[in-house]
Amino acid sequence: MSKFSNQPNLTHSLNTPLHQLEQRLFDQQVQIECWFRQQWREVPLLFYTSVDLRNAGFKMAPVDTNLFPAGFNNLNPAFMSLYIHAMQALMEKICPASNGGVLIIPENHTSNLFYFENIATLQEIFSKAGYPVRIGSLLENLSQPKQITLPSGRTLTLEPLVRQNNRLLVENFSPCVILLNNDLAGGIPPILMDLEQKVFPSLALGWQNRSKAKHFEQYQAVSEQFAQQFGLDPWVISPLSQECDEVDFMTGEGEDRLVAEAEALFAAITAKYQEYHITYPPFVVVKADAGTYGMAVMMIKDPQEIKQLNRKQRQNMSTTKGGRKVGRVLLQEGVYTFETSGANAEVAEPVVYMLGRTVLGGFYRIHANKGIDENLNAPGMNFEPLAFSDVCNYPCQEPAEVRNLYYSYGVIARLALLAACKELQAVMV
Amino acid sequence: MSKFSNQPNLTHSLNTPLHQLEQRLFDQQVQIECWFRQQWREVPLLFYTSVDLRNAGFKMAPVDTNLFPAGFNNLNPAFMSLYIHAMQALMEKICPASNGGVLIIPENHTSNLFYFENIATLQEIFSKAGYPVRIGSLLENLSQPKQITLPSGRTLTLEPLVRQNNRLLVENFSPCVILLNNDLAGGIPPILMDLEQKVFPSLALGWQNRSKAKHFEQYQAVSEQFAQQFGLDPWVISPLSQECDEVDFMTGEGEDRLVAEAEALFAAITAKYQEYHITYPPFVVVKADAGTYGMAVMMIKDPQEIKQLNRKQRQNMSTTKGGRKVGRVLLQEGVYTFETSGANAEVAEPVVYMLGRTVLGGFYRIHANKGIDENLNAPGMNFEPLAFSDVCNYPCQEPAEVRNLYYSYGVIARLALLAACKELQAVMV
Repeated sequence: MSKFSNQPNLTHSLNTPLHQLEQRLFDQQVQIECWFRQQWREVPLLFYTSVDLRNAGFKMAPVDTNLFPAGFNNLNPAFMSLYIHAMQALMEKICPASNGGVLIIPENHTSNLFYFENIATLQEIFSKAGYPVRIGSLLENLSQPKQITLPSGRTLTLEPLVRQNNRLLVENFSPCVILLNNDLAGGIPPILMDLEQKVFPSLALGWQNRSKAKHFEQYQAVSEQFAQQFGLDPWVISPLSQECDEVDFMTGEGEDRLVAEAEALFAAITAKYQEYHITYPPFVVVKADAGTYGMAVMMIKDPQEIKQLNRKQRQNMSTTKGGRKVGRVLLQEGVYTFETSGANAEVAEPVVYMLGRTVLGGFYRIHANKGIDENLNAPGMNFEPLAFSDVCNYPCQEPAEVRNLYYSYGVIARLALLAACKELQAVMV
Repeated sequence: MSKFSNQPNLTHSLNTPLHQLEQRLFDQQVQIECWFRQQWREVPLLFYTSVDLRNAGFKMAPVDTNLFPAGFNNLNPAFMSLYIHAMQALMEKICPASNGGVLIIPENHTSNLFYFENIATLQEIFSKAGYPVRIGSLLENLSQPKQITLPSGRTLTLEPLVRQNNRLLVENFSPCVILLNNDLAGGIPPILMDLEQKVFPSLALGWQNRSKAKHFEQYQAVSEQFAQQFGLDPWVISPLSQECDEVDFMTGEGEDRLVAEAEALFAAITAKYQEYHITYPPFVVVKADAGTYGMAVMMIKDPQEIKQLNRKQRQNMSTTKGGRKVGRVLLQEGVYTFETSGANAEVAEPVVYMLGRTVLGGFYRIHANKGIDENLNAPGMNFEPLAFSDVCNYPCQEPAEVRNLYYSYGVIARLALLAACKELQAVMV
């Protein structure tokens, strides 16, 4: 099967529990799909989501759930028909009685053309699905439409936003749906407040309001429920976590408590590694709960490392929303990336994309100079995207190595999506 | 683009109006999709449909709309993810609050293994979409489950139907949806009457109750509305038709009126051919309105042929539902098949499949020994299926020859679907 030939491989011998997981998911596919349908009936809808997964062979877990996903341009174009249909089904749910248009609000960093390839792909999916779509920019000094020519040859037009009473427009276009691809890291701009149009994702889920700890609490509960239902050890699909409040990396306040929590977490991971005969050293990810994406994250192999941080590391761990210096810290079991790609065995991290509740597919972030225990979504990281060779919505037929892998990705990613929906539900109540 | 290399080609020079049609559909894609969404809101849902198209280069039109479609096994397996998602979206619409199972009721002709490949593919799509599915047979002498091994290596189990009060079951399985893949040519069996479960398609659309003339009346209206909306000559997408009541081919009763109607139709086609500079001779298809599928259909190149039928032809034209000998006859402009495939230029007729309102794709019926003006869906016809190389739900990118062809098929097929939905609506009122 040549179409799989350039796909990542699991390069170690510790994959038995994972293949057991994949086999178990495969065997119970109908029941799993029924279970998800039941869950979706009980939670609000998210428009789109991407989930970074890590696959250690002996466990597979989400490490980041993004509600303002970029990277749609990295999906496999062979399955465009699926993306279009997923968009039609989603829009029909959101706007059952109208043909209304969509206004996409992108990030402002206009010099990143790869980011705008993502916007162009989103625009293409809307358009092929039969929905009028325009792009309205939050750029403050934009007074007239601005064309951007992309590396793919596509062009894209950013238009100035116009507020008319409680509606958000661009010239001669009054959309029904406002789709944010901007994580509102700078807070919610007044022009977006109190709109009568539907805004996705909910402003309440802007980056300013999200808590990594809350997301993983929800994920923990979801994965335990799923594991119980389908006869799995929840640890195989979920990282162990501890939280620690009131930590100030600059002054060292709360650090002793953090070290003690980290020791407890290392002990718990070590016990699990022994249970599964895993000989790699455990590691832990330390995340400032209010940290910006990719910042304020570090990996440690020993709890004592926390006390030995240098000034630069302390500053990095304090790079948080609104400049808050004291806050909650999430300690999380590090999940090794044992998928590698190519002759040089470059580390490959899967990223899975969802539109509504539909898994579209995904791609691997492939990075030559990163280790198997490093964060691949760091600022300035330079990755090569490698689109999944097949979709995730059903177990593939062959070959055996990847037969159920993509479907498993899709299941775990949907568990993370379900956790995010519960986050949204908690905010809405 | 090697993936297109074995696709049919239009083999003549009369294709300018059609390429104009394709271009116009392509240019107005967003508006066309909006238009369809508006239409679907006003008509009831059909579960699945296949439409036989004929593509003459200068016009493209449906010639048969089947509400009990077989041939799902001939679809391109590369787009299984689309079929699965379309099924999920459809089932979510039909059974929003349940995970209920599906019972498929196939035709009884168990010796046709290719037919049962179709049922196995349907079963596979349901199952991969996460719906429990079983097959309940109307075979009278089936007292226990019967396994059928198919050429593809799949096996399929026919189970005896059980009626419990107003529910239809098979052993230990009480489905929510009954899906008929049996056209009820023998009338509606009592075991299917007054069920509390949802039955698709509606029993009112069984083969016994359908009228070809009514379908094409609806199609005529739909295509005129569509043509007006999108600036087309309706003739380019729809065959001219005439009806004639009270014809008896065995006694010759009504034949003079039929000849007169045929003359008027030939004159109208000739005028259109002149307008478009088409030098091929017009032909007309004569269909007994109550004719069984593929039977009671003949092609004529001259109205006088009607009077010169031999006994065998007259008997064939009288092979109608319930043995009715006197009835309505539909005269319809014949549409040439100018698509051919392969080195021997074998005639290729596209068949398009829909699940709900979603166009899944289709295949070409390729027949070596048939002419460009013959009926390719005749009894005992021996065709080679050639799956479409791409989907129909958006205009493809390249190459130019087929760029918009599949999308055009999908548009015309959906117009025929819309006509069928209006047939259903008329029966429901």
